[in-house]
Amino acid sequence: MIEIEARKQAPSRTARLDAVFAALADPTRRAIIERLSRREARVTEVAEPFQMSLNAVSKHIRVLEASGVVERHRKGRDHILSINTRSLDEVDVWIGLMRRYWEERLDAMERLLRELKKEHKLSPKERSKDRRHGSR
Amino acid sequence: MIEIEARKQAPSRTARLDAVFAALADPTRRAIIERLSRREARVTEVAEPFQMSLNAVSKHIRVLEASGVVERHRKGRDHILSINTRSLDEVDVWIGLMRRYWEERLDAMERLLRELKKEHKLSPKERSKDRRHGSR
Repeated sequence: MIEIEARKQAPSRTARLDAVFAALADPTRRAIIERLSRREARVTEVAEPFQMSLNAVSKHIRVLEASGVVERHRKGRDHILSINTRSLDEVDVWIGLMRRYWEERLDAMERLLRELKKEHKLSPKERSKDRRHGSR
Repeated sequence: MIEIEARKQAPSRTARLDAVFAALADPTRRAIIERLSRREARVTEVAEPFQMSLNAVSKHIRVLEASGVVERHRKGRDHILSINTRSLDEVDVWIGLMRRYWEERLDAMERLLRELKKEHKLSPKERSKDRRHGSR
C-alpha cells in the first residue's frame, strides 16, 4: 500500500521528470547545457561549435526549452539562452532517493557480512576445517 | 580549446549516458527502478502492480537492462532482477558537475550584489535621493 501511494505523484512532476530525462538523453543537448552552465549565450554562439545546421541546433534548443532546462530572453535584437538553475533539482532529488535506498541495502549487507565473519571467528572448529580444505 | 577537449569523451561514456537518461525518461521504468532499489524481485513480482500486460512490462525491463541500470540473474527457475548500484554514478557525476558550474555563477552574482549594496551604503547622497523618490 505504501509503495502504491508513493508512486501516486502529481502528474505534472512525472511529466517534468520525463521531459528533463528525455532532454538529457542526447549528447548535443548535454553539450549545450554544459556550455550554458558556464555562462549565458546567444543562439548563434551556442550553435557555433557544432558541425550541424543552425536549424538542427535550434531544434535541440527547443527540446531543452520545452523541458524547462533552458530559458530564453531577449536583449535588444539578440535571443539570449541561459540555464534554469532549478530545473535539475527534481532529477537530482529522484536519483538521490534511489541512491539512499540502495546504500541502505548495501549497509545492511555489510552488517550481515561483518556478523557472519564474527561468528566464523567464534567457531575455531570451522576455521581449522577451512584450512584443511586448502583456503589460504 | 579547453571546452572542446572537455567535450571529447570516450564514445562509450556518451552512449552510456544517452541510454541511462533515455531509460529514466519513462514513469513505468522509474517505478520499476524505485521498486528494485528497495529489494531485488522476480519479473512477475515487478510486473504485478502495473495495469499492463507482462509483455509490455518486459519491454520496459529490457530497456532498463540494455542501459545497464537493471541486471538479471537466475535462481533456479526464476529470473531475478536487481539494480546495478553503479549505473547511476555517471549520471550523478554529470549532474553534479553542471550544478557546480552554476553554483559558482550564483556565488559570483551574490558577491557582486553584496559589493553593490556596500557601495550603496558608502554613498549617503544616493541614499537620501532614493528616499526622496519615495522608496520605502
